[in-house]
Amino acid sequence: MGSVTTTEPAVPDDRDAPAQPATEWVLALSCPDRPGIVHAVAGMLAAHDGNITESQQFGDPASGLFFMRVQVATTAGRAELEAALGPVAAEFGMTWSLDVVGRPMRTLILVSRAAHCLVDLLYRERYQDMPIDVVGVAGNHRDLQDLAAFYGKPFHHIPVTPDTKAVAESRLRDLVDELDVELVVLARYMQILSDDLCRDLAGRVINIHHSFLPSFKGARPYAQAHDRGVKLIGATSHYVTGDLDEGPIIEQDVERVDHSHAVADLVALGEDVERRTLARAVRWHAEHRVLLDGHRTVVFR
Amino acid sequence: MGSVTTTEPAVPDDRDAPAQPATEWVLALSCPDRPGIVHAVAGMLAAHDGNITESQQFGDPASGLFFMRVQVATTAGRAELEAALGPVAAEFGMTWSLDVVGRPMRTLILVSRAAHCLVDLLYRERYQDMPIDVVGVAGNHRDLQDLAAFYGKPFHHIPVTPDTKAVAESRLRDLVDELDVELVVLARYMQILSDDLCRDLAGRVINIHHSFLPSFKGARPYAQAHDRGVKLIGATSHYVTGDLDEGPIIEQDVERVDHSHAVADLVALGEDVERRTLARAVRWHAEHRVLLDGHRTVVFR
Amino acid sequence: MGSVTTTEPAVPDDRDAPAQPATEWVLALSCPDRPGIVHAVAGMLAAHDGNITESQQFGDPASGLFFMRVQVATTAGRAELEAALGPVAAEFGMTWSLDVVGRPMRTLILVSRAAHCLVDLLYRERYQDMPIDVVGVAGNHRDLQDLAAFYGKPFHHIPVTPDTKAVAESRLRDLVDELDVELVVLARYMQILSDDLCRDLAGRVINIHHSFLPSFKGARPYAQAHDRGVKLIGATSHYVTGDLDEGPIIEQDVERVDHSHAVADLVALGEDVERRTLARAVRWHAEHRVLLDGHRTVVFR
Amino acid sequence: MGSVTTTEPAVPDDRDAPAQPATEWVLALSCPDRPGIVHAVAGMLAAHDGNITESQQFGDPASGLFFMRVQVATTAGRAELEAALGPVAAEFGMTWSLDVVGRPMRTLILVSRAAHCLVDLLYRERYQDMPIDVVGVAGNHRDLQDLAAFYGKPFHHIPVTPDTKAVAESRLRDLVDELDVELVVLARYMQILSDDLCRDLAGRVINIHHSFLPSFKGARPYAQAHDRGVKLIGATSHYVTGDLDEGPIIEQDVERVDHSHAVADLVALGEDVERRTLARAVRWHAEHRVLLDGHRTVVFR
Repeated sequence: MGSVTTTEPAVPDDRDAPAQPATEWVLALSCPDRPGIVHAVAGMLAAHDGNITESQQFGDPASGLFFMRVQVATTAGRAELEAALGPVAAEFGMTWSLDVVGRPMRTLILVSRAAHCLVDLLYRERYQDMPIDVVGVAGNHRDLQDLAAFYGKPFHHIPVTPDTKAVAESRLRDLVDELDVELVVLARYMQILSDDLCRDLAGRVINIHHSFLPSFKGARPYAQAHDRGVKLIGATSHYVTGDLDEGPIIEQDVERVDHSHAVADLVALGEDVERRTLARAVRWHAEHRVLLDGHRTVVFR
Repeated sequence: MGSVTTTEPAVPDDRDAPAQPATEWVLALSCPDRPGIVHAVAGMLAAHDGNITESQQFGDPASGLFFMRVQVATTAGRAELEAALGPVAAEFGMTWSLDVVGRPMRTLILVSRAAHCLVDLLYRERYQDMPIDVVGVAGNHRDLQDLAAFYGKPFHHIPVTPDTKAVAESRLRDLVDELDVELVVLARYMQILSDDLCRDLAGRVINIHHSFLPSFKGARPYAQAHDRGVKLIGATSHYVTGDLDEGPIIEQDVERVDHSHAVADLVALGEDVERRTLARAVRWHAEHRVLLDGHRTVVFR
Repeated sequence: MGSVTTTEPAVPDDRDAPAQPATEWVLALSCPDRPGIVHAVAGMLAAHDGNITESQQFGDPASGLFFMRVQVATTAGRAELEAALGPVAAEFGMTWSLDVVGRPMRTLILVSRAAHCLVDLLYRERYQDMPIDVVGVAGNHRDLQDLAAFYGKPFHHIPVTPDTKAVAESRLRDLVDELDVELVVLARYMQILSDDLCRDLAGRVINIHHSFLPSFKGARPYAQAHDRGVKLIGATSHYVTGDLDEGPIIEQDVERVDHSHAVADLVALGEDVERRTLARAVRWHAEHRVLLDGHRTVVFR
Repeated sequence: MGSVTTTEPAVPDDRDAPAQPATEWVLALSCPDRPGIVHAVAGMLAAHDGNITESQQFGDPASGLFFMRVQVATTAGRAELEAALGPVAAEFGMTWSLDVVGRPMRTLILVSRAAHCLVDLLYRERYQDMPIDVVGVAGNHRDLQDLAAFYGKPFHHIPVTPDTKAVAESRLRDLVDELDVELVVLARYMQILSDDLCRDLAGRVINIHHSFLPSFKGARPYAQAHDRGVKLIGATSHYVTGDLDEGPIIEQDVERVDHSHAVADLVALGEDVERRTLARAVRWHAEHRVLLDGHRTVVFR
């Protein structure tokens, strides 16, 4: 069974469906590199009248791993495809996921007080084609409750103090379970998740770090950047691991600044680059374009 | 037989070669879209112990064409691969090219007086990994003869006047034939090629237009841009067709400008964006990353 | 008297104010170029204990005009500064505006159905430091009424049909008057303003055009761009004049696209570049950084 | 006397010159911030019929310093201007430089084996409007001797070994003196200058660091960047101080990369961003656009 998305409750089992129009599926996989992988996968898809509309492959000489993402239109249903994929995956030792193209990924957004990333994600869900289904917003402050409400999202206030940290995290775990959450987005959530939680949700939590990592790790990066007199500020979106600010990078971007910008200006400009960097990372993840290659990522844009 | 590179004199025929280390080949193809293409190609490669290291596919819903570029490591030689590819290509009606990854493409550069594009291409051939072999430089002026000489390139002075235009073009054709030229680069060559020549060299001539097409077609684009008060200037690299400035676009880029820039400043800034836009287009073409999709291009970067 | 902002009701007349902390003012001006302008202005400011914190000047050789924007901290009030500026302005034939740094500019936003620009401007007013005070939103459709309501903005539904165009425009004029509007932003407003209205509001109406002008003027620019196979899409923010799509350009930006993007993808990517291009233009205008130089602009960023 | 450019042998003393056309001068200065600076400078210039064509000012609240760069057209000669400027400079405690706009700055370029930065600077001197006069190229290897020769530049081979480091540096000092060098550019020069030399040439040595500082300081930054899986690589041009890689930053830029780029690809892409970042820094310095503000820079672009 695939690794990244293990449950897709929104997708019906098409096993017994009658003749129907083709559905477009996205298959993402990785495995040790060796000859014959593409042929095996393409053969399996061809056997189900699959028409490949878009596909990318990459073999990493450093890790010895092979990565593939393929979009295929076929009348075959999930069960049929999974049954056909099973032996191929077993033969090559594949980690894989299979999803319907464009299916919204069930997403929980964690916030604190800063609005810019939440504003942007909710806007993109409602008005644009971002394939996420934000099933809830959780905040350790109430500042953004009205924003969530405007977009019709349940807001969960989970305050965090040194004493209540364990309780708060337990509530987060419950939310993830109850809401059947596939993806957790830390949209400038200013609390640090425990190592245990990071491990349990590995590959399913995306953070936005307000710096061009690995520059200016840690607190107050814009003040550090101002003091150093940099001419570009950046942001980094990455998967969260126990090792803070060191998880696999998904996307980075920068904005030009100059001497006339005070720290507050850098913060304001930084919000723009943060939100667009995070939005791209979330979109690519939700479209199954991001595959893990050790502590690096392969991003099939 | 493939369409883009029909002759590769620098690549030996490996037909009778003994067991040898794997060579990395690049196969680029297009054909009408239908199920089974990837499977057929991958199967053919797998049958020759080919290991796919990088691959991209794209099906264009608008044109109904399918495009594929695959890099594959195999001990099979050219003759063997061509023999295996033949039936597959016939079955699917493919246009294709097969080349050794990194083989320098035999290139003729046409210039007038402006140096920036020629400087950049010759630098990239000598000092970087640009896979071109500049077999000659032809200019309608002698200004850049010394630059060509420094890089050890034969310079052909082919003056063009209204009266000698036909003769000059005939000399260009002779050069292309004698030097076995695969690619002609118009590096700010200020003469217009005849429709006949454009047609005969279709898909093998790349131009750099000093504007962000389709803005400011025609003469003096920087003066036009200045007059219009634009905030970005651009450059466009495209294949040359008889329809001036309307050939398939390969690459575009821009540079930020402001009110303080006079026309001369725009020209100077424009030279930077022109040379990097042209360099990318030439590199991608030489790496067989650019495929024609009607009057558009598919670029597998 | 100054040209751009002739009324600033939110700013009290400080004539009789007692000793007070310094206020930071922004003075923007243009006049025919000749020696002595900076000296005269700086002298007037120095005579009022003004401390210049930021200043930019530019003399345009093409138009023969001189432009200046200066931020100055002083305890002098508006009346005192205007009285001192009067003779200088008269001597040099200046067009000028004087405002308190950061004072929000009274802004009316016109919309149709597309949300992205309105979302962004309202977000920037509430959560960021954009110095605008959106006093109303007017739409020829009701689609964005709820969004305006969330941000606490009165929404004026002004439908436009061929028959009601004159009436609708009359209502717009009334709104501008009643709300004491300084700036009108066409945030993807899909109706064309009459020449009369454009003339009457000259220099006070900013539009976002969903194209990199002067490419793809007119309707359906993304379809045009897709058909042409461009590798960058852009947006242009400009002052509105009677000559459609030809007003003075304030800001332009682009986004990279490739062959895999359908027209709908270009539209979605275009929304990002449109909203950030418009946001910058509005901010710079509201900060008195944009000065008119014939049909071009001087932007002191 | 001004601090940055103390000798300008190419500029004649205009003291006794008869009536003549106006020359355009650039005056760059910094001093403790207080009211009246602009007025004093503008008054001095107006008294000599100076017409200000371009000017920028900035007061840094953090350092309490004021910075100004002004281009002024006047028939007054250097001696006259210096005599007039003296009292103003004394009154405000100014550090300043005065130069003719566009006068080429006498520049020594230090290189090792990598060609890209030297190629670019020599190209820009000959073919573009970069205001530098490269009076010599010094290398600790001979690899780039022919390139220097093509551009007609004397090449000084100064090998450096642990034993000869002091001797080599002494030869560099002699070159700087003998050639009347105003600016030293480390164009991927792989030797570290001594603290003494850095101090003696403070503000006159520009380096290009092949990283987006402060990320990946030290050796092999591209290998570090690849290992970290970054999505952007950058370059930083900065003044050299004794504190390696920590001098005031003049310019930074980045280039987008992805998973498919091996370390060698990053190096090649890095060369492009290095050379354009260095070229901008050198141009701005040569145009007196860069002023020191402690360990930060003010860049009046």
